[in-house]
Amino acid sequence: MRNPKSNVQNPKLKVAVLGAGNGGHAIAGHLALKGFPVKVYNKFEHEIVHMRERGGVTLEGAVEGFGPLDLVTTDIAEAISDADVIMVVVPAFVHRFMAEVCAPYVHDGQIIVLNPGRTGGALEFSKVLKEKSVQAKVLIAEAQTLIYACRISGPARVWISGIKKRVPLAALPATDTPTVMEIVHPLYPEFIPAANVLETSLDNIGAVFHPSTVVFNLNRIEAGEEFDFYRGMTPTVTHFMEAIDRERLAVARAFGLKMESAREWLLNTYEGVQGETLYECIQSNRAYAGIKAPKSLNVRYIFEDVPTGLVSIASLGALAGVSTPACRAIVDICCVLFDRDFWREGRNVENLGLAGMSVEGIINYVNTGERN
Amino acid sequence: MRNPKSNVQNPKLKVAVLGAGNGGHAIAGHLALKGFPVKVYNKFEHEIVHMRERGGVTLEGAVEGFGPLDLVTTDIAEAISDADVIMVVVPAFVHRFMAEVCAPYVHDGQIIVLNPGRTGGALEFSKVLKEKSVQAKVLIAEAQTLIYACRISGPARVWISGIKKRVPLAALPATDTPTVMEIVHPLYPEFIPAANVLETSLDNIGAVFHPSTVVFNLNRIEAGEEFDFYRGMTPTVTHFMEAIDRERLAVARAFGLKMESAREWLLNTYEGVQGETLYECIQSNRAYAGIKAPKSLNVRYIFEDVPTGLVSIASLGALAGVSTPACRAIVDICCVLFDRDFWREGRNVENLGLAGMSVEGIINYVNTGERN
Repeated sequence: MRNPKSNVQNPKLKVAVLGAGNGGHAIAGHLALKGFPVKVYNKFEHEIVHMRERGGVTLEGAVEGFGPLDLVTTDIAEAISDADVIMVVVPAFVHRFMAEVCAPYVHDGQIIVLNPGRTGGALEFSKVLKEKSVQAKVLIAEAQTLIYACRISGPARVWISGIKKRVPLAALPATDTPTVMEIVHPLYPEFIPAANVLETSLDNIGAVFHPSTVVFNLNRIEAGEEFDFYRGMTPTVTHFMEAIDRERLAVARAFGLKMESAREWLLNTYEGVQGETLYECIQSNRAYAGIKAPKSLNVRYIFEDVPTGLVSIASLGALAGVSTPACRAIVDICCVLFDRDFWREGRNVENLGLAGMSVEGIINYVNTGERN
Repeated sequence: MRNPKSNVQNPKLKVAVLGAGNGGHAIAGHLALKGFPVKVYNKFEHEIVHMRERGGVTLEGAVEGFGPLDLVTTDIAEAISDADVIMVVVPAFVHRFMAEVCAPYVHDGQIIVLNPGRTGGALEFSKVLKEKSVQAKVLIAEAQTLIYACRISGPARVWISGIKKRVPLAALPATDTPTVMEIVHPLYPEFIPAANVLETSLDNIGAVFHPSTVVFNLNRIEAGEEFDFYRGMTPTVTHFMEAIDRERLAVARAFGLKMESAREWLLNTYEGVQGETLYECIQSNRAYAGIKAPKSLNVRYIFEDVPTGLVSIASLGALAGVSTPACRAIVDICCVLFDRDFWREGRNVENLGLAGMSVEGIINYVNTGERN
C-alpha cells in the first residue's frame, strides 16, 4: 500500500507534464524551479524544440527564474513511466488523446491531474482508461481551472501574469480526493478540495462567457477586427449569458450542488467589481480591460467550450430533467456554423460513461466510485 | 354574381389602404395619383396626421406627383365599407390585428391583398376571419413582396427608389387567383400569378438573410455602430444562411414547389451579381452597397422575420418531416435573447390553421379551398 505521507516529505516527487502550451510551459517551468524533477511530453516536436535545446523554461512575471527540465520528449512512455504525478495541461478536447496514449504505461499509485478538467474531464479520462482495459490503480483528479494566468512569451519562455490563490480540485471518486490533495500539496498548496468532479466540472464559467460572445460577435471576429472581448458583451449578450448561467446552476442543483452564479463569481474573484446584473459586473471588472477578442473563429472559446462545456451541461440537464434551451441553442448554432456534430462528438452523458444512470446513481458514482 | 370584368373597366375601383408606414404611403399615394379613390386607415392617429392635413401624399423618385386621398382615418369601418380592394400594407405581425378589426365590416366580393404576406399571411388572415365567424365571401390574396422600394422622406411624403417589375401574387385558394389578378390588374399590372400561397409564402428571402445577420452581428447592432448590413454577411454567416436556405427549399419541395435558391434569386434579380457561393453573390451585388445595418435590435429583421418566417418554415417542415436545424437554432436563440416564445406566438401550423393536416391535405386546401 502506498503511503501518501512519504511523498509529501519527499522533495523528489517526480512530475510528468503532458502538453507544452501556455499552461504546460508554466507548470513545467515552475515545478522545476521549485526543485521537482520534471519531464515534459508533447505530441508535436516543433512545440518543444526550444525547451529541449535550452534544457528548461524561463519564467517571467509573477515568478522569475529558470526551471531546468529532466526530459523533453514526444515519447509518452519515457515521460510518464516513473512519474508520481502526471499533470495533463491541454485543451479539454485533447484529454481523450492523452488518456489513450497514457493507457499502456500508467501504473499503480500514479496520480493524474487534469489542469483543468473542464466539464467532464476526469469522467472522460477514466472512461478511456476503462475502454483500454487499464488495470493499474491510478488516481484521476481534475482542477476547476488552470492555476496560472500565463502566456508563452518567447522560445521556452513564459510570462506568468498571475497565480490563483485557490484552485478547487476533486478526484474521481471523491473518496480519493484527500489522498490526491495530500500528495500534490507540495507541488501546489493552492489546491483546495471540491465536493466531487461534478462540482469542478459544472463550475465552468468559460462555457457561460465564451461561446455566446463569439456567436454574437461572429462577424467582427471573423473579420479580424480588434476589439476588447469583454466590451463585446453587450446588455443583450449578457442577458443571454445569464440564461445559460441559470441553466448551469439548475443542472448543478439537480446533482445536489449549490454553486456560485457567474455574477457572484465575478464579485468574489475580482477587486472592484460591482453591479446588479452580469452586464454591470463584467463592465466594471478592470481585470478584463484590454483582453482582446480572438481574430479568428478557430478558437477554444468554441471548440473547447462547446463540446466540453455546453454539450455536457445540456446533456447532464437532459438526463436530470432540467431544460437548457439557451445552452442548446448555442450548440445547435455552432453545429451549423462549423459543420460539426458537437452533440455527438462532445462530452454528452454517453461519452462521459454516464448513459442510462439515474441522477442519484451518478452522484453516488462520482462520490464513491460504485455503480449501482 | 360579381363580374370581375366590370371592375377592370371601372376607373373608379375603390381602394382602402390599411397601414401608413413606408409601403402604406407609397401604395396610397401612387394609386391616388393613378386616379383611384383611396381611403387610408391606420391604428395610430399620429402616423396619419400629416396625410390628413395635406389631403394626400407627395411622391418623389421613381414616381413624382401628389396623390390626393379621399379619407384618412382611424375608423376601420369608414375606411373599408365601400372598398373594392383592401390593400393591407403592414408588418406581417400586424396581419392578425388587421383581420380582427376588418372582420365586422367586410362584405361579399371585396378583395384583400396582403403586401406582402410574408410566410403564411393569407392563411392567418383567413383563419382569423373564420374565428370571427365572418360569413362574407371575401377573396384573400398575398403578394410575395412589397411592390416598392421606398422610404417616408418627410411629412406625408415618400421617396420611391424603385418599383419591382414583377410581383408574384396568389389567392387562397389558388382557384381565386385568376379573379383577383383580373380585378387588381388596373391597380398594379406588375402582379403576376403564383402557384398558390405556399409559393408566395415560402419565397421569403428576408427570413434567410435577416435574422442570421442580426444574430451574428448582434453586438455591433446593439451598440449602434454604423456598418453596411450586407458587408456584415461574412463567409461563416452566409454559410449559415445557405443552411437556412437549403431547409427552406426542402420544405418547399415537400409541398410540391420548386423554388429559386437565395443565390439564384440574387443572380436573377440584380445586375452584375456573380459568384459560386451565396457569399460571393451578396458581396458582388452593388445594389446592396450603402444599405446600413439597423442601429437597434428592435427590428422587423427579428420581430417579423422570425415569427412570420423561420417559425413557419420550421413548423411546416416538422409537419412534412423535413428537418430544419438551422432555422430552429436561430428561433431558439431569439426566444432567449428577447424573452419571447416565438414558437408559440409565431405562425406555426396551429396558428396557420393547418394543424393535423397532411402535406397532401394542405396542398389541396391552398389550391382548392377544400379541407378533406
